[in-house]
Amino acid sequence: MKSSPSFWVTSVSGVTSDDIIIRGYPMQELVGTVPFTAIAYLLVRGDLPTPGQARMMDVLCCSILDYGLQKSGTLAARSIVSVNPRMSAGLSAAMLGAGEFAVSPEPTGRFIEESYAAFKASGESIETFAAQYVDALRAAKKRVPGFGHPVFRGVDPRAEKLKTIAIEAGIWGEKNEWYEAVHRAFQKAANKPDFVMNDVGMLAGIMAQMGFTPAEMEGLALMSTMPGLIAHVSEEIQSGAINRLVAAENTECQVEKRDLKTDLAAAGWA
Amino acid sequence: MKSSPSFWVTSVSGVTSDDIIIRGYPMQELVGTVPFTAIAYLLVRGDLPTPGQARMMDVLCCSILDYGLQKSGTLAARSIVSVNPRMSAGLSAAMLGAGEFAVSPEPTGRFIEESYAAFKASGESIETFAAQYVDALRAAKKRVPGFGHPVFRGVDPRAEKLKTIAIEAGIWGEKNEWYEAVHRAFQKAANKPDFVMNDVGMLAGIMAQMGFTPAEMEGLALMSTMPGLIAHVSEEIQSGAINRLVAAENTECQVEKRDLKTDLAAAGWA
Amino acid sequence: MKSSPSFWVTSVSGVTSDDIIIRGYPMQELVGTVPFTAIAYLLVRGDLPTPGQARMMDVLCCSILDYGLQKSGTLAARSIVSVNPRMSAGLSAAMLGAGEFAVSPEPTGRFIEESYAAFKASGESIETFAAQYVDALRAAKKRVPGFGHPVFRGVDPRAEKLKTIAIEAGIWGEKNEWYEAVHRAFQKAANKPDFVMNDVGMLAGIMAQMGFTPAEMEGLALMSTMPGLIAHVSEEIQSGAINRLVAAENTECQVEKRDLKTDLAAAGWA
Amino acid sequence: MKSSPSFWVTSVSGVTSDDIIIRGYPMQELVGTVPFTAIAYLLVRGDLPTPGQARMMDVLCCSILDYGLQKSGTLAARSIVSVNPRMSAGLSAAMLGAGEFAVSPEPTGRFIEESYAAFKASGESIETFAAQYVDALRAAKKRVPGFGHPVFRGVDPRAEKLKTIAIEAGIWGEKNEWYEAVHRAFQKAANKPDFVMNDVGMLAGIMAQMGFTPAEMEGLALMSTMPGLIAHVSEEIQSGAINRLVAAENTECQVEKRDLKTDLAAAGWA
Repeated sequence: MKSSPSFWVTSVSGVTSDDIIIRGYPMQELVGTVPFTAIAYLLVRGDLPTPGQARMMDVLCCSILDYGLQKSGTLAARSIVSVNPRMSAGLSAAMLGAGEFAVSPEPTGRFIEESYAAFKASGESIETFAAQYVDALRAAKKRVPGFGHPVFRGVDPRAEKLKTIAIEAGIWGEKNEWYEAVHRAFQKAANKPDFVMNDVGMLAGIMAQMGFTPAEMEGLALMSTMPGLIAHVSEEIQSGAINRLVAAENTECQVEKRDLKTDLAAAGWA
Repeated sequence: MKSSPSFWVTSVSGVTSDDIIIRGYPMQELVGTVPFTAIAYLLVRGDLPTPGQARMMDVLCCSILDYGLQKSGTLAARSIVSVNPRMSAGLSAAMLGAGEFAVSPEPTGRFIEESYAAFKASGESIETFAAQYVDALRAAKKRVPGFGHPVFRGVDPRAEKLKTIAIEAGIWGEKNEWYEAVHRAFQKAANKPDFVMNDVGMLAGIMAQMGFTPAEMEGLALMSTMPGLIAHVSEEIQSGAINRLVAAENTECQVEKRDLKTDLAAAGWA
Repeated sequence: MKSSPSFWVTSVSGVTSDDIIIRGYPMQELVGTVPFTAIAYLLVRGDLPTPGQARMMDVLCCSILDYGLQKSGTLAARSIVSVNPRMSAGLSAAMLGAGEFAVSPEPTGRFIEESYAAFKASGESIETFAAQYVDALRAAKKRVPGFGHPVFRGVDPRAEKLKTIAIEAGIWGEKNEWYEAVHRAFQKAANKPDFVMNDVGMLAGIMAQMGFTPAEMEGLALMSTMPGLIAHVSEEIQSGAINRLVAAENTECQVEKRDLKTDLAAAGWA
Repeated sequence: MKSSPSFWVTSVSGVTSDDIIIRGYPMQELVGTVPFTAIAYLLVRGDLPTPGQARMMDVLCCSILDYGLQKSGTLAARSIVSVNPRMSAGLSAAMLGAGEFAVSPEPTGRFIEESYAAFKASGESIETFAAQYVDALRAAKKRVPGFGHPVFRGVDPRAEKLKTIAIEAGIWGEKNEWYEAVHRAFQKAANKPDFVMNDVGMLAGIMAQMGFTPAEMEGLALMSTMPGLIAHVSEEIQSGAINRLVAAENTECQVEKRDLKTDLAAAGWA
């Protein structure tokens, strides 16, 4: 699809005088017939899910739910509404709290897509290519996203649960197999047989297999944070706290007094 | 609840080393047991929904779904990602597209809460007080939010459907009765018997009856826009359009050339 | 000016193939001829400033500069870039940190405009009407924005400095006189002769006299925060801190464990 | 500098009971003594500028000023405030309109820093290494940011003006020489002797030489857009336009009606 900067093409929905046609279906027929998360699948993927895909999608939307008082996005949202008490402002700030270092499965999704494409182009067996791929990454001192957990060893129970649902739903497929082969190769090369594939890794693999792009994965993760964010922003607005700040004992100010006149003169100001 | 600016109190969730405790329940027990929208209800309202409340909540989350290519929030989101192609940036911009003039049920929710509180304090019968309340609004030339539609006359079928579900789910209650009394009083006072209560009005009434605050209503409406936004942002990123602008034929530039030297001199610059 | 939703009218600037015409003047003639803040005045107000107005404008742009590590907008910006290390994301979040409770002079500006309009319509003398106006506010238990400071008594030296510059620049005028009359009336009615007009109050009065709208005042205050925000976001990105959170000792989690099966059954789930 | 996630270290400013100490200097001494853009330099770079650096900084802050009605960030900002009429919301949305494809000099800044570091490490002469560097880029089909313009040939007059000021101010230095060498090598290798270094390229080179990081360059570019944005948002709020949308003739909706019951059955829903 190619659009010019002032001409917009869409296949998401069309508006009529009394309804909205979502991916071809009248909204009023959809609502109440299939659940919200199934309609979300339809909107993002373009087609209705099977019941199995719908169940998986519902679980994907539950992947984060609340990332708590001690996470950056919630901290930003609550800080903002402590001076500007509007739900929309808090949610807007929190949407920016997904990136390289938290919330977003995009980097993992991108890794899976790129490495899977390389595997398919290679003509090698899956185990052989996975071993080569991991060796090359390790030689370049690059990490593989989606592996490791501070507590879990051997198996991440959340990841196992996701895998079970994906298999039951008939979703599990070649991208998952590929990513698991990478995981096994990594355990072997690093000599860390207990190193888990974590829940973010499993999620990204399943979303890739379902056809979501890395950008869409980030979108779904952010949608998953919405219920917790609404709860936190509402709690903050009702809390009576105004003008949030960092406690003084948690800050260090490295500013030493200087003399303006002396320094201006030294800098050449008459 | 009262927090100091640097001390944070929450009852939304707690984090342990291997799970998150959401409103008292381990996240891993919730996910897959009840649907995403039921967990969303739990997060925002603080308690598990009944099955009827869960069904209503799912329908509430479907209240917008996609506000289309021709609406302000989508326009903002797609414009942003046409230069800064990141899902998080597009969603952040779009969250700001709820306010007085679109998307947000907050003003209607606020009206219902305030007018209902006045009714309860009045000691009057519902029909009498509704008539007085509408008269006072009309005298002050204030509008009642949640009424009217460009196409529908008599009944808004979307609002009727919501009402049917709310009654089936055992949610329909005194706030809905009050708001319908206001609607009847308005139809009578304005002599517009065909003037409908629209879907936003019905939604706000149901959400008020379920105990959501006006700010939470805005949050749920924004959550409802997420699937459509993710679809639009993804479509935009894949479209190849760069640097969105308004078509020249849709703009009028009222800038006439002026002479800088002349005008600086006239303004007193040497 | 009246625009339809898809037709845009502007008098800010026009674009040619090799330059931008800003309020009538070619950008390339403006840059280097008058300072940035004078061009900012031109852009927002529509006409070139006098040298006095330009000096005042420069000082207005210095009204905040840095609102520090312990303020909500900076906290939000730094939290966001600790997971999503992009300058644009941090600045976007911080722009939302202006509102009823911090940074924004909009409420004060609105008060001055509304009360001044009432005074002009009254036909009363300035002292008489100010006394009446303050009495009515106090009876309605409304506060007057722009007065009071935790440290300064009698005079806020920052406000005095602004007033001196405004008088020198030939800006001081009837809106300032009105707002000072309100201040005197308030000191008298509240029997607080030492209650200062603070810097935000003085700023809003001067901006009102210069013709800035309350929304523009908020914009200028946010522009004033940009240098400090850029410094903080840059410092944060370089700090190596990842995934900012609130220190555990500054949080209280009021979440008690509950039993999911029991509570689901009690809520009517089969 | 290394901070833990809940401990914050800053050298930007410190707050006392009656003043703010900006990079060591009391704010009240700075304001009115040096211009806004010189204080911005101090805040971001950490030290007072020389008068020459201050002049250059003022010109850098004028690098964009207004990117007009037909650019993505302004379009987003005006769309947002057409439903949510708040200056802070409009400015927040617009800050996201800097990225790979517009406004941000960050990619160019990053190129200059990385290529300059490679040059310094090479031990080669500047012309030799520039030729090698350009050849390698062209072989990898990578473009060099900061070169080219749709209208200007041979010389971009805006870039020339910036260069003149940088030389006068004593700023011009080795990074500029390096980037010009890359430019000459590129003109030669591509056999395009008229291919200009554009204003963004020149700006990034000067900012790099002044010590600004690529992230700070993006911040300064966004600060430069603030006056135009404030003007546009104010104009939009006053315009009376509500709920901005794309004109129907500029959209193409590729949504064909489908039958829900048929398709649900086909997807396996009972």
